[in-house]
Amino acid sequence: MNEEDILKQVHEMVGSTMLGALGIRFTRIRPGYLEATMPVDDRTRQPYGLLHGGASAALAETLGSFGSHLLVQDSGGLAVGVELNINHLKSKRGGEVTGKATILHQGKRTHVWNIEIADEEGHTVAVSRLTVMIREGRG
Amino acid sequence: MNEEDILKQVHEMVGSTMLGALGIRFTRIRPGYLEATMPVDDRTRQPYGLLHGGASAALAETLGSFGSHLLVQDSGGLAVGVELNINHLKSKRGGEVTGKATILHQGKRTHVWNIEIADEEGHTVAVSRLTVMIREGRG
Amino acid sequence: MNEEDILKQVHEMVGSTMLGALGIRFTRIRPGYLEATMPVDDRTRQPYGLLHGGASAALAETLGSFGSHLLVQDSGGLAVGVELNINHLKSKRGGEVTGKATILHQGKRTHVWNIEIADEEGHTVAVSRLTVMIREGRG
Amino acid sequence: MNEEDILKQVHEMVGSTMLGALGIRFTRIRPGYLEATMPVDDRTRQPYGLLHGGASAALAETLGSFGSHLLVQDSGGLAVGVELNINHLKSKRGGEVTGKATILHQGKRTHVWNIEIADEEGHTVAVSRLTVMIREGRG
Repeated sequence: MNEEDILKQVHEMVGSTMLGALGIRFTRIRPGYLEATMPVDDRTRQPYGLLHGGASAALAETLGSFGSHLLVQDSGGLAVGVELNINHLKSKRGGEVTGKATILHQGKRTHVWNIEIADEEGHTVAVSRLTVMIREGRG
Repeated sequence: MNEEDILKQVHEMVGSTMLGALGIRFTRIRPGYLEATMPVDDRTRQPYGLLHGGASAALAETLGSFGSHLLVQDSGGLAVGVELNINHLKSKRGGEVTGKATILHQGKRTHVWNIEIADEEGHTVAVSRLTVMIREGRG
Repeated sequence: MNEEDILKQVHEMVGSTMLGALGIRFTRIRPGYLEATMPVDDRTRQPYGLLHGGASAALAETLGSFGSHLLVQDSGGLAVGVELNINHLKSKRGGEVTGKATILHQGKRTHVWNIEIADEEGHTVAVSRLTVMIREGRG
Repeated sequence: MNEEDILKQVHEMVGSTMLGALGIRFTRIRPGYLEATMPVDDRTRQPYGLLHGGASAALAETLGSFGSHLLVQDSGGLAVGVELNINHLKSKRGGEVTGKATILHQGKRTHVWNIEIADEEGHTVAVSRLTVMIREGRG
């Protein structure tokens, strides 16, 4: 299955989840590397009209945990996010942000991802790491 | 203004924000201590039907940053979340979770919050800390 | 073996490790709960004469990873620290600090610890969480 | 003052601190970028003969907090580390590690550093972020 087909399938699957509620859309899905966009609008802002830090955290966790899922699903593994940390560097009022997740460590039991979230000009809005534990046997 | 009035005012203010999108509702708002609930449903689940870790992160960041806002707004301060970390301890498929935020450190320039998220039986679902920086002069 | 004997044995074992270099001494070792002290002196200060944040981090990681080791060693498990986070809340120039570690989550594959570091008056100097992965088979 | 002179001066200053106790030596000091080495020996190992995760944390905090200090000392600012997080990716038994710190965000009130620690072959041993608050007025 090529990347375009995967993206189409993913968006059908996630429409009725938190990803749909926040408007998160994957734009690139490759082994160990993913990108997704998220709008800065009523769904992702806090009361003062700025991007909610929690929305950035949700985008980061989405990218890393889905990236791990893709790496282990064929062998029946189950990816479970265990720890997320994120620094918020820059505020944003509108438009959209793009998150890029790169795997830093791909062990049998643990994955660690680096996620950077940037605005339209490429300025970093937030940086994050996610630790994922791989469990056996969903089947 | 008593707590009930504050809660009513807050919910009018946050309806059209991420808090509305995720169904987060404050249930207790006191100086240095806040509680809020969040449903585990289509708005907060990931594709496998479990509570999305990013939703827990959003709940934690909401509680701490709003708690800091309340502590500094009268003196014209601006509360900005700078770092969030969270451990996910337990999965959840439905019902709701409750987050409780307690301030650990209330300095002039920095606040640190501890946030615990639990299920209906009081079992811990996630634990989190949020670092907030207080800036002067919104006025 | 009672707690006193365990403590004696531990101190013989750790003298020629980082614990010796920093002056860390365990004072209470129980399943899921440990305490240790660390001096604030030349070994643990930064150039400006204050307790080095990295020394607090080292104390936190020591407590949690050793606590996990004690819980899994009898069944042949290996405890490996995977993620540490720490907030520094208060500076300190001399005397000693005491760290107290409590296990928050004891799963088969993952442990999560909360560690609080306090001064002689019980004021919190730092708060930390450590995620430990349990691997099988050291034998 | 050139980099060589700065390094000499720094090492005179830090000999009787935690940096001396752990054998940390700066090898490159530039605005927003620093490197330091740390031996993996009795001073930095845990009881099982591996590099102590707390030593890596201490190296990371050293690099970021000293890097911030250098950026603000001329204007009388005081750099205070507020939050450190670190993922341990790879174990190590001997030799030395090298930490490289790059500033991610240099605001008036907050600095955020990314620190990577690698072995002699350049394999990543740990990744870390440090949040530093800048206070005014040490004078």
